[in-house]
Amino acid sequence: MKVTSLYIMGIDLGGTNIVSLLINKKGEIITRDKRKALAEEGKEKTISQIVESAKAVIEKGRNKGISFQSILGIGIGSPGPLNTKEGIIYFAPNLPGWKNVPLKNILEKKLNIPVFLENDANAAALGEWWIGAGRDVNNLVLFTLGTGIGGGIIINGEVLHGFRDTAAEIGHMIIHEEGLLCNCGTKGCLEAYASATGVVRRTISALKKGAKSILTEMVNNHLKEITCKMVYQAAKKGDKLCKWITEETGRYLGIGIANMVNILNPEMIILAGGMIEAKDLLFNPVIKYAQKYALKASIEKVKIVPAHLGDNAGAIGAAATVLKRKGNL
Amino acid sequence: MKVTSLYIMGIDLGGTNIVSLLINKKGEIITRDKRKALAEEGKEKTISQIVESAKAVIEKGRNKGISFQSILGIGIGSPGPLNTKEGIIYFAPNLPGWKNVPLKNILEKKLNIPVFLENDANAAALGEWWIGAGRDVNNLVLFTLGTGIGGGIIINGEVLHGFRDTAAEIGHMIIHEEGLLCNCGTKGCLEAYASATGVVRRTISALKKGAKSILTEMVNNHLKEITCKMVYQAAKKGDKLCKWITEETGRYLGIGIANMVNILNPEMIILAGGMIEAKDLLFNPVIKYAQKYALKASIEKVKIVPAHLGDNAGAIGAAATVLKRKGNL
Repeated sequence: MKVTSLYIMGIDLGGTNIVSLLINKKGEIITRDKRKALAEEGKEKTISQIVESAKAVIEKGRNKGISFQSILGIGIGSPGPLNTKEGIIYFAPNLPGWKNVPLKNILEKKLNIPVFLENDANAAALGEWWIGAGRDVNNLVLFTLGTGIGGGIIINGEVLHGFRDTAAEIGHMIIHEEGLLCNCGTKGCLEAYASATGVVRRTISALKKGAKSILTEMVNNHLKEITCKMVYQAAKKGDKLCKWITEETGRYLGIGIANMVNILNPEMIILAGGMIEAKDLLFNPVIKYAQKYALKASIEKVKIVPAHLGDNAGAIGAAATVLKRKGNL
Repeated sequence: MKVTSLYIMGIDLGGTNIVSLLINKKGEIITRDKRKALAEEGKEKTISQIVESAKAVIEKGRNKGISFQSILGIGIGSPGPLNTKEGIIYFAPNLPGWKNVPLKNILEKKLNIPVFLENDANAAALGEWWIGAGRDVNNLVLFTLGTGIGGGIIINGEVLHGFRDTAAEIGHMIIHEEGLLCNCGTKGCLEAYASATGVVRRTISALKKGAKSILTEMVNNHLKEITCKMVYQAAKKGDKLCKWITEETGRYLGIGIANMVNILNPEMIILAGGMIEAKDLLFNPVIKYAQKYALKASIEKVKIVPAHLGDNAGAIGAAATVLKRKGNL
């Protein structure tokens, strides 16, 4: 490894964990730091955790012969809404007390290295485009399927930010007007149906209406303890209700994907997040219904695939942001 | 006018009319030819009509001192699906007998000038971006509201084509899964609700269910004669059913716009096509519901406006395609 090579850092700032990576320009991970985010202790604490994590990675890199000077910059993948140009986080639901935080300026002063901010789902999409599932395509849409549904859109190899950095809120696409109430206050959003929260909600609702399922026993009648994972587990065991719920989840996601395919005609759809652990149980109906609902000419060559980079996608994409903004990618 | 200036031609190829324009690089119209398309007489007839229309415009230009050599190329705005790079029209619902027609090659041979093909709604969006309603913005979505609903998307000043030239089929975005059947075969598309056809269909359906309206008298009980225009006329006269239908049309369009705003975060939404003649009657509910259904951060600065270029949008945008492909715009 040549000391003259250039390196980049990516930090994935989440409400649960802070993951920092030092990687080379091929995307290979040199060193890594992961620590539990103490978000509830407030903004100052989280910022000092970011600084400590960055310093830990820099120090580990130094032990491998990588000088501080050879690190091009730090990319931060952060929950939003935020301002990518000025590096300000306006607000972050999972980071209590964060409001209009000029994170770029704060970190540049503390770390003395250029810092670039990117929305976390955008960063994940960029990471998958760079060295993940989308490395051979230039137009893709990534869906992050977790508690909510987020997204990142890559068009001609560039992240779509939109006019005010709020593009790709694909979880809030309305697929059933006047349907289920979403956390955002609107009715009928994809997220209300097909996020992990949506899956649990539809399951509990069916149970309350009298549907039978082994889930009731699994949670000892405490329906509130049902998780999305349990629904998949029960479906795998052949539970009729959970198989139906899972088929319907695939159908809702298929509609969301069909809409994105009809609107953007991407080459690839990448599904990421905890829910994809269900594998074929989820992907089979998703692919079936996306093909059913999209225009044939638009969907026929589209690949619908799982993300490749797992937990590291956000941090790798954050690092890729540095290369993008510096014009190296 | 200097003879050394460069000029461009744009042709809007429709199932009803063929409009050809010779314009200068500022978008000012120098000469124009409009003729009724004899599409039902078949492909060869329509192609010779295009050639004649182009030659008529070239001839009129010559009379104004514009040499053939000073014309940079011809852009064709055509119904699709089509291949913009190779200039092939795969299929066109309103042009009987058109299948895999290499229009670019055919016209280049007959006219001896470079020809560029663009989807008609994309061309209209590009025209509005260049010198129309969107001339001061770089990110916009245009909805064409007619018999069907089409669209064009401009991102960072470029037409979004997608992976296989089928992007911006925004009329087939599903807004009410398992809702009204659309012409495309899928249920719940925006087009099934909010196109002129959708408006008429919802109105007739309400009348058949017993709703009262002055429309019944206007068409002498021949409900099949109801048009979208009549619905607006009756609404303007205070007809209760038609006012409600129009409010609902605005609501459906508001949902479609909210989805586009949440997905792309454009700076402007432009509505074009025959339906916008209803003016405030349509725009007022459209704006109200778009604001209701979209994420606040995404919609708050978005302008929702009527198209400026009217009938010429397609041909002007087709001409702009020449400048774009030649790298002059």
